[in-house]
Amino acid sequence: MIGNFTYHTPTKMYFGKDCIKDLPEVLKKYGKNVLLTYGGGSIKKMGLYGRVKDLLKDFNIVELSGIEPNPKYDPSVIGGARLCKENDIDVILAVGGGSVLDCSKAIAACALYEGEGWDLISGKVKAKAALPIVDIITLAATGSEYDMGCVISNTAINDKRGYLDELLYPAESFLDPEYTFSVNAWQTACGTADAINHVLEQFFADPHSTFNDGVMISALRSLMENVKIALKKPDDYAARSELMYVCSWGCNGILANGAGYSGWPMHSIEHALSAYFDITHGAGLAIITPRWMKEILSEKTVERFVTLGIGLFGFDKSLPDAEMAEKVIEAFYTFFESIGIPMHLGELGVKAEKTEEMADHILKYDSTNEPWMFAPLGRDALIRILTASM
Amino acid sequence: MIGNFTYHTPTKMYFGKDCIKDLPEVLKKYGKNVLLTYGGGSIKKMGLYGRVKDLLKDFNIVELSGIEPNPKYDPSVIGGARLCKENDIDVILAVGGGSVLDCSKAIAACALYEGEGWDLISGKVKAKAALPIVDIITLAATGSEYDMGCVISNTAINDKRGYLDELLYPAESFLDPEYTFSVNAWQTACGTADAINHVLEQFFADPHSTFNDGVMISALRSLMENVKIALKKPDDYAARSELMYVCSWGCNGILANGAGYSGWPMHSIEHALSAYFDITHGAGLAIITPRWMKEILSEKTVERFVTLGIGLFGFDKSLPDAEMAEKVIEAFYTFFESIGIPMHLGELGVKAEKTEEMADHILKYDSTNEPWMFAPLGRDALIRILTASM
Repeated sequence: MIGNFTYHTPTKMYFGKDCIKDLPEVLKKYGKNVLLTYGGGSIKKMGLYGRVKDLLKDFNIVELSGIEPNPKYDPSVIGGARLCKENDIDVILAVGGGSVLDCSKAIAACALYEGEGWDLISGKVKAKAALPIVDIITLAATGSEYDMGCVISNTAINDKRGYLDELLYPAESFLDPEYTFSVNAWQTACGTADAINHVLEQFFADPHSTFNDGVMISALRSLMENVKIALKKPDDYAARSELMYVCSWGCNGILANGAGYSGWPMHSIEHALSAYFDITHGAGLAIITPRWMKEILSEKTVERFVTLGIGLFGFDKSLPDAEMAEKVIEAFYTFFESIGIPMHLGELGVKAEKTEEMADHILKYDSTNEPWMFAPLGRDALIRILTASM
Repeated sequence: MIGNFTYHTPTKMYFGKDCIKDLPEVLKKYGKNVLLTYGGGSIKKMGLYGRVKDLLKDFNIVELSGIEPNPKYDPSVIGGARLCKENDIDVILAVGGGSVLDCSKAIAACALYEGEGWDLISGKVKAKAALPIVDIITLAATGSEYDMGCVISNTAINDKRGYLDELLYPAESFLDPEYTFSVNAWQTACGTADAINHVLEQFFADPHSTFNDGVMISALRSLMENVKIALKKPDDYAARSELMYVCSWGCNGILANGAGYSGWPMHSIEHALSAYFDITHGAGLAIITPRWMKEILSEKTVERFVTLGIGLFGFDKSLPDAEMAEKVIEAFYTFFESIGIPMHLGELGVKAEKTEEMADHILKYDSTNEPWMFAPLGRDALIRILTASM
């Protein structure tokens, strides 16, 4: 069944080889003054920075560089918003991965807000407006180029928040798979793991439908097949193009319109991990996934595992449900291991002694234990998942 | 591989039970003067007309009723455009099936054009603006509620044109599956056949991708399973909701972004059939489908049949390709027959003596024989398909 929903993704997507040639035409609709945001030197190394500057020679460009992974409210968001105000910025052009774009979304809202920006990000105040955002995405992962969300860390208070607002949809997104050729194996694996998790967070829900199930299984199949190809041959255009496109569907709701909302519990857990230990988001998710699956496996949820077992992995339909579920969990563990993700949090520097504190943090800042959830997680369950993941 | 594409569907979709309660809030953004368009009496019989009038008691409503299936340029489009001009209409509210909405889209463009409206529809002139369109769709079929196209017949010159323009996307679409409970068996079957054909027109293309293939196979599975349920139990909400949602994805490109463009040859053929004999669009498509498949089956295209055979029908992977293709063609024939569609054009009143004239008409008004097509169809091929379908 398709339940009630509202869906609206106004973002215009340009996809393919050299699609950014249309950038000047697109940007000039919004104005002359552009805040160009990016991270480290990777966009310079691959020649993208030069190409963009060249395309935008008739615009006034102000730059905000050095945006970090798990982007920080202070200094990046605060600094970017200040630049916008000081330079009368008309449009933000984000060039980079999901972190650059997430940071730019927060900047877009904070730039037009007079109070403390964290009040918007933490949901205390609703933004009335935001600057338009155009992006050139260089990493297949978060889906930020096609959704209205961003995740911002506030290290001063050990907090990491998902900030959602319709105002934050990019106006136009450019996706050229060739810009992902230089993404290294670790980031390729972690980005794909992130996208896989986005699908799973939506798959484990009720109600669900034949159509959405098939769409999500197709997304998982494409991600799992193509990441293996891209890891072997980083410049395989076909594989990179599928990864990039499928990742873009991760978080705007389109994978599961009308399905129940699961509450995205694995993301709640991972956000605490990243807030405490600044680990790579996708790696954290990959490690948690099979442990979370084991925790929530029950008579109520087993049908979801069976549907994945048959539809995605092609397991024998006649297997008993419980056995099928175990095989699915094992298959995900083995898959993540096979793409190079260490499957224990300790290997990423997470300390077991923080487990209880993190569980309390999750319950305080995220809702993992609501009765409407598909599989609510209380304190004990969270501790079990974290402990098994160490 | 995902090839180059641009994708943008700005339409906001409201889906589910009684979603139209938000109608006044939505409409008032556009203005006070509403052209309410609809077909025959079905929306009155099901109480929808009364509900809409009730919701819109604070608006000025002008009505255009009697819009016909295969909507006509004269009188419907011309008449609607005149009403808009005379009454200073701000927004068009289309209530009904795809034909009502298609007609309303053409009206929206012609209302703001001073010349002969057919010049826009036939592509001679590009529209500069169109009135905003809001719709309440009552038939799961065409996908017009989520695309920028409409199909308009001009009986004076035996022509039927697909008219596409970004200006024609509905601003907001309301989809309540309960309004499809009263759709009779014939229209339910034909609407689903139309949607199935939309998927197939996009599936038979090159390049294609793991992801899009899976999405399209899921759409086909959902349509084929759920139409059988809806035919047995017309008020089955789960089945009607899937049919309605999947149909909405038919024609906006999202099923196959980055795939090759096939040219939609079966639609070209069917448009001639409807122009000459005014048959039901979905029925015509269902009858043509297996004959078209047989015609285009070749070494180049057989992989598409094999992918459908394994993915959709679960046929044995070890079957020889040619045998698999035959089984797929047979499976579609049997399926359409099983949902009550007579599988010969003669049963719908089509006369075999018009075959050659229709083939010439198709080649004149549609491009079925372009070298870039996945499977070009010349005059002989068109005649073979039509003859086999009689």
